[in-house]
Amino acid sequence: MKDEAGKLSILRVTEQGRGEIEDTVVKESPFTIILDNQELVTLLCSPTNLEYLAAGFLFSEGLLKSKDEIKKIVVDEDRGVVRVETEEAEKFAKDTSSKRLIASGGGRGASLYSAIDAQSQAKVESQVKILAGDVFSLVSQFQHRSQIYRATGGVHSAALCDTEGVLVFGEDIGRHNAIDKVFGECVLKDIPTDGRMIITSGRISSEILLKVTKRNIPIVISVSAPTDLAVRLANDFGVTLIGFVKGKSMNVYTNGWRVATG
Amino acid sequence: MKDEAGKLSILRVTEQGRGEIEDTVVKESPFTIILDNQELVTLLCSPTNLEYLAAGFLFSEGLLKSKDEIKKIVVDEDRGVVRVETEEAEKFAKDTSSKRLIASGGGRGASLYSAIDAQSQAKVESQVKILAGDVFSLVSQFQHRSQIYRATGGVHSAALCDTEGVLVFGEDIGRHNAIDKVFGECVLKDIPTDGRMIITSGRISSEILLKVTKRNIPIVISVSAPTDLAVRLANDFGVTLIGFVKGKSMNVYTNGWRVATG
Repeated sequence: MKDEAGKLSILRVTEQGRGEIEDTVVKESPFTIILDNQELVTLLCSPTNLEYLAAGFLFSEGLLKSKDEIKKIVVDEDRGVVRVETEEAEKFAKDTSSKRLIASGGGRGASLYSAIDAQSQAKVESQVKILAGDVFSLVSQFQHRSQIYRATGGVHSAALCDTEGVLVFGEDIGRHNAIDKVFGECVLKDIPTDGRMIITSGRISSEILLKVTKRNIPIVISVSAPTDLAVRLANDFGVTLIGFVKGKSMNVYTNGWRVATG
Repeated sequence: MKDEAGKLSILRVTEQGRGEIEDTVVKESPFTIILDNQELVTLLCSPTNLEYLAAGFLFSEGLLKSKDEIKKIVVDEDRGVVRVETEEAEKFAKDTSSKRLIASGGGRGASLYSAIDAQSQAKVESQVKILAGDVFSLVSQFQHRSQIYRATGGVHSAALCDTEGVLVFGEDIGRHNAIDKVFGECVLKDIPTDGRMIITSGRISSEILLKVTKRNIPIVISVSAPTDLAVRLANDFGVTLIGFVKGKSMNVYTNGWRVATG
């Protein structure tokens, strides 16, 4: 598996002068998902765990519903291609021609898609709770894992957790990709997401909130900020949305009853 | 014009306990661009300067080439819609049906699109230079303007500059949108971008680099990190790529001859 970052010779300029140094730069690679011999989408991503990214993407976009539908996933790292074969090739060949509209993107959100999703999304009913102290220690554990981010300043991290600790960890230059890598690993390894938590280094937008809600996850934690639309959706869907976790403090935007203090 | 952020009552939790506080949360709104009566794309964005965003988006996507092509831009903020009418409605009606594939996205990059763009992109030939000291003071000026970011931690800023100072400033929850708002204002107000600089708060990915190169801009400055693909493209296109500007230091990744010291 390729690395997430590489070395580069660059020019360092300060008030004192200039000089060549070796620097770590995060990798960005085009990666094309071919579903049943049909080119579906090309993502710009960190070239690691591509089978997880492919699986996670297909599940997040609603193109696959169960691991059993997957016959084979073949990653060709050098050509930046992953081929996913399903049990129902004909069905998907038909579906994907319309789906392509949604999946191929210019680094932006597709709210029409989100709006349709939001209408059909069921509420998260989980009664799980978490101690405030556990949130602080989970985030601290999460941040220790985010080494690429610390080295290059350019990668997002995401993790599936329970109250005990981090279960699955993913990193990518894209917020969406990092979470899809986590979900893809869950799908391929039969790791349940129900009633568990997601931590992300990135901003919580409406799309991220929807993606997580679809996995029936009751608690979403970010070290960064949410948007007002994400807060509104979290409220509607019964999701506990926590942001700005820093040291021993945090903001709970919705459904605070799941966060226990003392 | 609506604001970029709103007030919200949230729960603040620390080791000492919990309490309600009023917090500032960044706004995220769906915003649909209708080009010559045809729905083109719905972006998730900060609901400010929507006419600039629409114009910038249409130029960045290559759907418009000159301000003269625009007959009318009408923004309906309440319905989250902007209608753009062009001089050549028939031509665009044909073009946009294929373009839709590219513009409607899931918060991800479309590298196929970038790859095609990259092949046809001309080199930036500008011989403009900048003093290292001017970079430091421009970025400092830029960061003073980024007030929403400081208040909510959730907004990206972008600016068009010359060596004297910031000329056009844009803010949005999306990195791409912030830059498109800047370019849209340039287009609508006849502000030239040739030979000038772009500063951004966000990461420089290949897509951002391409977007800026298309406007014939020789120097791109970020307070954050570039990706290796962006560095490669900047090298190929003759663009000076500067990252991690912090206080009085910076990394120059490509074409360092444009940065003068002493």
